[in-house]
Amino acid sequence: MVQMFRGRQEKIGAAPGTMVYVGQDRPQPVTVTVIDYGPERFEERELPTPEDATPYRESTSISWLNVDGLQDVDYLRRVCEAFHLHPLVQEDIVNTHQRPKLEDYEDYLYLVCHMLTFNEATQRVESEQVSLVVGPRWVLSFQEQGGDVFDGVRERIRHGKGRVRHLSAGYLAYALLDAVVDNYFAIIERIGELVEGIEEGLLDGPQDSRLSSIHELKREMILMRRAVWPLRELVGGLQRGESYLVQPDLQVYFRDLHDHTIQVADAVESYRDILSGLQDLYLSTLSNHMNEVMKVLTIVGTIFIPMTFLAGVYGMNFRYLPELGWKWGYLGFWLVILAIGGGMLAFFRRRGWL
Amino acid sequence: MVQMFRGRQEKIGAAPGTMVYVGQDRPQPVTVTVIDYGPERFEERELPTPEDATPYRESTSISWLNVDGLQDVDYLRRVCEAFHLHPLVQEDIVNTHQRPKLEDYEDYLYLVCHMLTFNEATQRVESEQVSLVVGPRWVLSFQEQGGDVFDGVRERIRHGKGRVRHLSAGYLAYALLDAVVDNYFAIIERIGELVEGIEEGLLDGPQDSRLSSIHELKREMILMRRAVWPLRELVGGLQRGESYLVQPDLQVYFRDLHDHTIQVADAVESYRDILSGLQDLYLSTLSNHMNEVMKVLTIVGTIFIPMTFLAGVYGMNFRYLPELGWKWGYLGFWLVILAIGGGMLAFFRRRGWL
Amino acid sequence: MVQMFRGRQEKIGAAPGTMVYVGQDRPQPVTVTVIDYGPERFEERELPTPEDATPYRESTSISWLNVDGLQDVDYLRRVCEAFHLHPLVQEDIVNTHQRPKLEDYEDYLYLVCHMLTFNEATQRVESEQVSLVVGPRWVLSFQEQGGDVFDGVRERIRHGKGRVRHLSAGYLAYALLDAVVDNYFAIIERIGELVEGIEEGLLDGPQDSRLSSIHELKREMILMRRAVWPLRELVGGLQRGESYLVQPDLQVYFRDLHDHTIQVADAVESYRDILSGLQDLYLSTLSNHMNEVMKVLTIVGTIFIPMTFLAGVYGMNFRYLPELGWKWGYLGFWLVILAIGGGMLAFFRRRGWL
Amino acid sequence: MVQMFRGRQEKIGAAPGTMVYVGQDRPQPVTVTVIDYGPERFEERELPTPEDATPYRESTSISWLNVDGLQDVDYLRRVCEAFHLHPLVQEDIVNTHQRPKLEDYEDYLYLVCHMLTFNEATQRVESEQVSLVVGPRWVLSFQEQGGDVFDGVRERIRHGKGRVRHLSAGYLAYALLDAVVDNYFAIIERIGELVEGIEEGLLDGPQDSRLSSIHELKREMILMRRAVWPLRELVGGLQRGESYLVQPDLQVYFRDLHDHTIQVADAVESYRDILSGLQDLYLSTLSNHMNEVMKVLTIVGTIFIPMTFLAGVYGMNFRYLPELGWKWGYLGFWLVILAIGGGMLAFFRRRGWL
Amino acid sequence: MVQMFRGRQEKIGAAPGTMVYVGQDRPQPVTVTVIDYGPERFEERELPTPEDATPYRESTSISWLNVDGLQDVDYLRRVCEAFHLHPLVQEDIVNTHQRPKLEDYEDYLYLVCHMLTFNEATQRVESEQVSLVVGPRWVLSFQEQGGDVFDGVRERIRHGKGRVRHLSAGYLAYALLDAVVDNYFAIIERIGELVEGIEEGLLDGPQDSRLSSIHELKREMILMRRAVWPLRELVGGLQRGESYLVQPDLQVYFRDLHDHTIQVADAVESYRDILSGLQDLYLSTLSNHMNEVMKVLTIVGTIFIPMTFLAGVYGMNFRYLPELGWKWGYLGFWLVILAIGGGMLAFFRRRGWL
Repeated sequence: MVQMFRGRQEKIGAAPGTMVYVGQDRPQPVTVTVIDYGPERFEERELPTPEDATPYRESTSISWLNVDGLQDVDYLRRVCEAFHLHPLVQEDIVNTHQRPKLEDYEDYLYLVCHMLTFNEATQRVESEQVSLVVGPRWVLSFQEQGGDVFDGVRERIRHGKGRVRHLSAGYLAYALLDAVVDNYFAIIERIGELVEGIEEGLLDGPQDSRLSSIHELKREMILMRRAVWPLRELVGGLQRGESYLVQPDLQVYFRDLHDHTIQVADAVESYRDILSGLQDLYLSTLSNHMNEVMKVLTIVGTIFIPMTFLAGVYGMNFRYLPELGWKWGYLGFWLVILAIGGGMLAFFRRRGWL
Repeated sequence: MVQMFRGRQEKIGAAPGTMVYVGQDRPQPVTVTVIDYGPERFEERELPTPEDATPYRESTSISWLNVDGLQDVDYLRRVCEAFHLHPLVQEDIVNTHQRPKLEDYEDYLYLVCHMLTFNEATQRVESEQVSLVVGPRWVLSFQEQGGDVFDGVRERIRHGKGRVRHLSAGYLAYALLDAVVDNYFAIIERIGELVEGIEEGLLDGPQDSRLSSIHELKREMILMRRAVWPLRELVGGLQRGESYLVQPDLQVYFRDLHDHTIQVADAVESYRDILSGLQDLYLSTLSNHMNEVMKVLTIVGTIFIPMTFLAGVYGMNFRYLPELGWKWGYLGFWLVILAIGGGMLAFFRRRGWL
Repeated sequence: MVQMFRGRQEKIGAAPGTMVYVGQDRPQPVTVTVIDYGPERFEERELPTPEDATPYRESTSISWLNVDGLQDVDYLRRVCEAFHLHPLVQEDIVNTHQRPKLEDYEDYLYLVCHMLTFNEATQRVESEQVSLVVGPRWVLSFQEQGGDVFDGVRERIRHGKGRVRHLSAGYLAYALLDAVVDNYFAIIERIGELVEGIEEGLLDGPQDSRLSSIHELKREMILMRRAVWPLRELVGGLQRGESYLVQPDLQVYFRDLHDHTIQVADAVESYRDILSGLQDLYLSTLSNHMNEVMKVLTIVGTIFIPMTFLAGVYGMNFRYLPELGWKWGYLGFWLVILAIGGGMLAFFRRRGWL
Repeated sequence: MVQMFRGRQEKIGAAPGTMVYVGQDRPQPVTVTVIDYGPERFEERELPTPEDATPYRESTSISWLNVDGLQDVDYLRRVCEAFHLHPLVQEDIVNTHQRPKLEDYEDYLYLVCHMLTFNEATQRVESEQVSLVVGPRWVLSFQEQGGDVFDGVRERIRHGKGRVRHLSAGYLAYALLDAVVDNYFAIIERIGELVEGIEEGLLDGPQDSRLSSIHELKREMILMRRAVWPLRELVGGLQRGESYLVQPDLQVYFRDLHDHTIQVADAVESYRDILSGLQDLYLSTLSNHMNEVMKVLTIVGTIFIPMTFLAGVYGMNFRYLPELGWKWGYLGFWLVILAIGGGMLAFFRRRGWL
Repeated sequence: MVQMFRGRQEKIGAAPGTMVYVGQDRPQPVTVTVIDYGPERFEERELPTPEDATPYRESTSISWLNVDGLQDVDYLRRVCEAFHLHPLVQEDIVNTHQRPKLEDYEDYLYLVCHMLTFNEATQRVESEQVSLVVGPRWVLSFQEQGGDVFDGVRERIRHGKGRVRHLSAGYLAYALLDAVVDNYFAIIERIGELVEGIEEGLLDGPQDSRLSSIHELKREMILMRRAVWPLRELVGGLQRGESYLVQPDLQVYFRDLHDHTIQVADAVESYRDILSGLQDLYLSTLSNHMNEVMKVLTIVGTIFIPMTFLAGVYGMNFRYLPELGWKWGYLGFWLVILAIGGGMLAFFRRRGWL
């Protein structure tokens, strides 16, 4: 996720409103699934052609059209035009480098957010852009790939659990955003475990791998922050009821959601602080370690170097080297050696190095 | 407290308003204690069933219902429904990962704050979520466990000390929040002692344990901040009298409380700054220490290494090594050695290493 | 780009409104190109004299006059006066050290922004000032040199692609700014590649060149930020429709542009954070490396120094050195040596150095 | 000043408005001194009993009652009640851990600020809480101990110098605050001298004491900031004339005072920045120093270690060691030694180590 | 400039409005120069006595009185009183430790700013306080010393160049401030050159002097910021036309000036960031350097220490040391030595140390 706008370059020079898909290259067909429901009715089906979406725009029941796959730009344009979406919205849906944002186009709201997953293999947070278009009685959701966090919402609609069947399209939008944000908690929790693992590992001494783990988690926090902070502002805007599509009775739900986004944003900041602290701690441990290594070398070196010199002196071949002939010379040598060693040790102990 | 949302994951996919307790697993029964009082009357009892709470909602005296234990979700729902609490409030009461917040539900205020304790064994700040629901003539308080900081308030109500018996439910809420915040001062004071201990300990030279103490205190400050800052905003909102439940004559008390929260928040920030300073100081001391160690090694090494070389030279067995036969050779050797040693020492003194 | 105001000094003491070109010294003639268009018409030509610009001020079609080269100050003044521009605007057009800014002169808007290019040879972001003056039916653009990012816009006007032929001068200004900002994405992408390169290179061990690459990218980010942040505010102002020259139907386009500037600003900040993280990581890797080097030296030194001393002892020439005469002396010596070496290795293993 | 709330703990559980003195334990009697003045009159005396203060509340002249000593809580309550002070004000007067603050009680203003002194013995900034209560025609000031910075104000009142005798109680409050802030400048000046001393001392090489001086000054700046920043806001509030007790003609004085508090706050921030810079410089000097030490060790070590090896070789006692018998062996040995030494030196010079 | 309030102490205890000069001690006489002009007239002379200034207060032409030297406090008071300046203004004019500020005294505006010069000898930014008092048809300027940046303005008035002769006193004030700010650009440019010099110097290896240059430039940036930021706010206030003395037709000039102050403030911030980056780079280079030094020592040490040990072994005098008698002993010794050396080199190469 270090390269933030890979592929964006192809768009340069294109007219505003041009649809260019900038995401991954794996070809994938577009599938459009409709869930149409009311207090008493429920229908779920896959649309054969984009034009089949048109009736749902005017129907009195609530319709949720979920679009998986953003590569077939023509197909998508036909879906968008069935709901009269502005060309700039069409452009943004396929341009998957959007920041979370909320745009009010009078007839509908356009919302961008990011669905995050923690990839255990690469230890990275991966991001998939989700666009929501919220009309008076319909919600469109666009995802890059199949597989999402909305299964809980689908289940509640299917089985009429909770209030979802009795409430408006605005509530459905809330439920989808809530599912996205709830998933952030799972990622934060996973990161919490990794941080704890690093913290415990530090006790075993410094290792290169641990340091790059810290660096990587910090980078993931920087990037996750880019997903969370704008979302927090976005939901704050919805909570203040700036659009007529968010009915006053929904504000309590959006307030709750806003609160969740604040919790996540907060946790991201706290983990950044804690990771910075861990990095400092790691470096300090390293310094401490080196200090200890140095001490051992210094003690051994400074004790034996003078002794070796003395041994060298009495290994010299001078013809007139009187000590060599003394009876107690060798014994005396050892006494001097012990005195030097003892003195050094006392000196180091006084300095607090032992 | 590093893992901020442990257990939160089980909630993912659940409908908003679903009560799921996410806290610790030790099973604990729910106990509901009522203190019902007026200027002239006082009653304190434990409720047998949740439905016994209903009359207190309408009584003209002030009622304080304290609920200990959040694991029996059904029991709690019955208590909450006796006071007509919104499902989202019910959800938040048992979801003990809330940030301090204030929500105005017209009929009542919902407040979340954290009761902190300093665990001497682990040297960690532990947190217990306290939810307060403040109605016109009643206050509900929900705690994860028995044992709290409200005994002073209970005593004042029991014995009619101070103004508490003559004032409204809003004043009772103030008194409870005041007890929570007063307890923060005790923790700050304990942390002040620990900081002072570390500061004094640094004079004795660097040690690994000291460094991780600093790191741990810094992390506790990061986490304590999460409890204090939102509380400060919350009380600020109450002080500005944004709710009709805070009567104008209570604003002077909430102003005072606001002031206390600012003091705590301020102290937390100051300790973070001081701890960062201590960490820098620690690392500097370490560097200084290493510098000194290096100097000793260098001095000993650089003085004796050339001498040892010279001794080695005259230990060689060349047949034609004229110095060995000189009469004053050995004496001359020592003079050269002393000259080298003296020159080195003078050099080091000039460089300021001695 | 470190010297931000080179040549600015010559202006000191001059009266406000004096035109002094402060940019590069390569002499370059001024060329003025006009593109005049409407839904049905299109004309493109180079102006022979500045006075030929006058009729375009009053014509009913949309006119875009692009001026390349800012060194012929007299020529420029004549162009500016054909459009009645204020002396302070004339001064700012040639003073190429402007911050991006927006000034509303009632009859026209004056906009400054920077066209950036990434110079692959010097690995630096280079900046060229672009001034836009937006009138009711005309747009003037001033550039330091020929060659720009507006070719896409020219193509769309020439061939009547998109909406540009049907919309106002305000839309043309939007299209030009959009081209400038789109180009920023290309630079961000290039920087993303460089950051990734550095990140991968770090695994191969520390190198001086890598460190100064990080430093240079950080500095470029600091300087790029100076181009992006004020532009973001500027476009924000246009989006809020503060000028009558931005018709309400254009606001949706400026909102989109604003969003792009936020994305770029965001990415610049994120890269600064990531680069700081990389620098920390680099230094840590360096420390780690040194730690390892030290360990090897220490292990070898501390094992062999005492052994060498012992060898020295038995190389001494004392007449009475009893061990020398022992039958198993030499074997004993080796046993002692092996014991010392083994003990040391065990000690180091216990300390976790091996 | 590291322990910010020492003694605060005893208050926990007490009813709001309870007076508990939390400061130092040296018992000290309370003395109340009255200065009562008007354009034509002046009276200064010590009050025998607290009740003697009552008439000054209603008198038409301006009265300044200065209270020294906060330990006799009963005595203080009687003084406070003579002026009808709110229980929360009474509590705050003796609770000497207040942040500077301004509270408007309609009949009077309650102000807390801190009188700072620089203790030369401990090199610490010491703080004494001063509470001011400003009524329509009276000012109460409460201090922990005798001895203050108000002697200049007293002199001006006694001798009718300046405008003080002709102006209101609000002006007197201004004069007292001005004396407090003027004293901050003296402390800033003293700290400036210490910073300069450290800066000059750094040239003499790194020392442990210098580092802890920097740390201590930084900590004092953190704590001084706690006294200055809230005061700045407080005076800003007074300047905007938010209370009727600050007459419009006094606003120019409070604007001036506000300006002084900004200057002090600014200087505190600048010194924090400069001290951080000095700490970095100190550590860099240390690193540089170590670098130089290492170089010497390395040069001496790497030159002599191979030489010593060679000397060792020719000290071996192999029976067949042909060089030993060569005529020019010894001379050759020295030539090789010189070649090795010279080569090493050339290598180091090329690497820039000499 | 480290000591920010030197001499300020003498003022403590003085009544507000007391004039005490706190600047440098070199005695200097006060000189007052008048430039009086209108579209058709121009007069320039030195005033013999302060009272001669009085007629200029009421004259219908524009008058600029420039006062050099602030030590003769009595003389200054007489000048100030000729223009009815408030005592607090008089105090601030001679108290040369003011922050840039703007005060509106209804009849006139009082402005403080700082004229900066870069002292090449000490490499420090020096500051001289300039006070401007702007009345309806007159401007007073007060400087500490003769010599300023206003010569360009004087020339334009003398020779009637530009618009200055035709416009109001507000325009004159603008021209003076513009001259002050224009001079800031020169200083920024000089600092840019120094930064570039340091950047290039870093390539030649670490040196102590370079590090303190970085530190000094950083400190100068901290102090320069104190001059620039408040000035930016001040000019922003003037631009918004908050005073009637700034006629609406001048706002375009003050907007331009505001823009210049933002550019300077911006550049100061950017240089702070770049200097911090340079310091980091310097330290990293240092670490890298040390790393390289260590490697050489380690390689030489670890290769030769074991060899020296072996040479020592065969220099021992044991009676039974069989290898010494072997025919190929000496040759074998060299083979072993070469094997050890080669093995070590291979090991280091594999670790990437060579």
